[in-house]
Amino acid sequence: MEILITGGAGFLGARLARQLLRRNTLSGPDGAQQTISRIRLLDVVPASGFNDPRIEVVTGDIADPALIARCLTPATQSVFHLAAVVSGQAEADFDLGMRINLDATRHLLERCRANGNRPRVVLTSSVAVFGGEMPPRVLDSTSVTPQSSYGTQKAIGELLVNDFSRKGFIDGRALRMPTVSVRPGAPNKAASSFASGIIREPLNGLQAICPVAPETPMWLVSPRMAISHLIHGHDIDGAGLAFTRTLNVPGLSITVKDMVDALENVAGRKTVDRIQWQPDPAIMRIVNSWPGDFLTARAEQLGFQSELGFADIIRAYIDDELGGAIKA
Amino acid sequence: MEILITGGAGFLGARLARQLLRRNTLSGPDGAQQTISRIRLLDVVPASGFNDPRIEVVTGDIADPALIARCLTPATQSVFHLAAVVSGQAEADFDLGMRINLDATRHLLERCRANGNRPRVVLTSSVAVFGGEMPPRVLDSTSVTPQSSYGTQKAIGELLVNDFSRKGFIDGRALRMPTVSVRPGAPNKAASSFASGIIREPLNGLQAICPVAPETPMWLVSPRMAISHLIHGHDIDGAGLAFTRTLNVPGLSITVKDMVDALENVAGRKTVDRIQWQPDPAIMRIVNSWPGDFLTARAEQLGFQSELGFADIIRAYIDDELGGAIKA
Repeated sequence: MEILITGGAGFLGARLARQLLRRNTLSGPDGAQQTISRIRLLDVVPASGFNDPRIEVVTGDIADPALIARCLTPATQSVFHLAAVVSGQAEADFDLGMRINLDATRHLLERCRANGNRPRVVLTSSVAVFGGEMPPRVLDSTSVTPQSSYGTQKAIGELLVNDFSRKGFIDGRALRMPTVSVRPGAPNKAASSFASGIIREPLNGLQAICPVAPETPMWLVSPRMAISHLIHGHDIDGAGLAFTRTLNVPGLSITVKDMVDALENVAGRKTVDRIQWQPDPAIMRIVNSWPGDFLTARAEQLGFQSELGFADIIRAYIDDELGGAIKA
Repeated sequence: MEILITGGAGFLGARLARQLLRRNTLSGPDGAQQTISRIRLLDVVPASGFNDPRIEVVTGDIADPALIARCLTPATQSVFHLAAVVSGQAEADFDLGMRINLDATRHLLERCRANGNRPRVVLTSSVAVFGGEMPPRVLDSTSVTPQSSYGTQKAIGELLVNDFSRKGFIDGRALRMPTVSVRPGAPNKAASSFASGIIREPLNGLQAICPVAPETPMWLVSPRMAISHLIHGHDIDGAGLAFTRTLNVPGLSITVKDMVDALENVAGRKTVDRIQWQPDPAIMRIVNSWPGDFLTARAEQLGFQSELGFADIIRAYIDDELGGAIKA
């Protein structure tokens, strides 16, 4: 089977590709596991670090329908649509967010429709679809009132995935992912970038800025579990999704203070002292509009796994990204 | 002040225009009532029956950005966006629905943004945004899971109106209108067309087909109240809408059987006998996916009026459209 991963050079996309190469199978149209023959990694920058004949790296603008037509053919049975302009950037550049998060998503779905093979499509949505007045724990039935352009564009993507699925054009799933922490690499323009930075930078011996208050509640998922959710979300039977293809997936509800306390437990006081608390009103406004706790009953019934504790997530980051060693 | 009404040749659009001409004022940017100098009626067919220098009739394709640019200028302070492809037609012709209900709406909002005058925009949304698993009464907090392309496109329109408002590009309001009954004129391709037809046709001495079961619950609004809601929705202070610009407006919860009983009370047995009960699975599937009852607490707090009983609505139809006389 042939798979397309958009945002395939990104952290989650590349990690997903590596996990798929290891598994070597994914659900086909009839639900049976099929052998993976090809994974196309589409991104604005070339995906690197792969040395596997099943990987095909494609570089270009996801909002270019001609490029999509080249990457997404009637032989493409599965699409993981991860490419997006992140929250802070979509807020700063409205047109860019609309072009990548809305127009490109729609073109991609239209290409699936034109191909006529009803591929499985996994869209990564976000907790940013929620905002405003919310219950203390967000339920599967909680309504969507995004307070950012990113959240709006993701909510529209969910609606499109649902309607294209209902019409039989695709077999879609929209997974509302918690904030991923701990991400490796450099900070990005996501308002949530600090949620990895305040753990990653200190563990790498660097100073980090925390732009939100210690009591800020966060809804997190580890990189390992995020990949697990994406693959499970792909493999479940679409018929079981009934009246909505959109799912809140399991995560971990934790305050920023509890994150820092877990870091101190794992890595000690000296590491934690590298965090500087510098409130940033623009980031706080976006982050505080997101919910910090969910009851993900529907996803759990569908077999999505529960997240570990945050200390375990930090240890997994140290294992996966630092080779087990902390910079003192 | 200058006003644009899209769908201005349609039943609601033309009726809204006549009511605005009678009022001669509408809220300006500062909330004070301003005198209406011009009402542009844009539609695919020319609006007719007006003889007033304030009315300007424009005919063309609402999905044509050049036409929108001509109708919607920096002098246009208020937009009532009523033009839409109806539910049955959007289901039958997916591309047409996307083009008119989504693309044209977005172009219109982008034109408002480009004009830079932050006009008030009233979008008519619909109960069709709801579907699937719902509480017995839909609340202001009930989540949106449309089961039709029309409902999907309206839900996307709501999200766009909200984000364009949050960004300060427009001062928008998205009103989820109940099914309007009793509409005058001919049946249309809306799945809800029967909700007027089973009253209108018998009162005009004609046979009518009812394609749904008698126990089907409907959420209705009269033409008079629909116009009242549109104007009130325009005139309320946008600052009071807080975290969402989308409102479920008051209506009447009633079964089809109760509608027919009210018709018999008003017009007699002979009139009711003109209704033929012929279930249509395609129409039933769409109509049964819509909620039949709402608790519209938020709209009531914002001063939207409550709907009358259905017998009074039938009598208003007889007064407004039949000159007070029923065809025996």
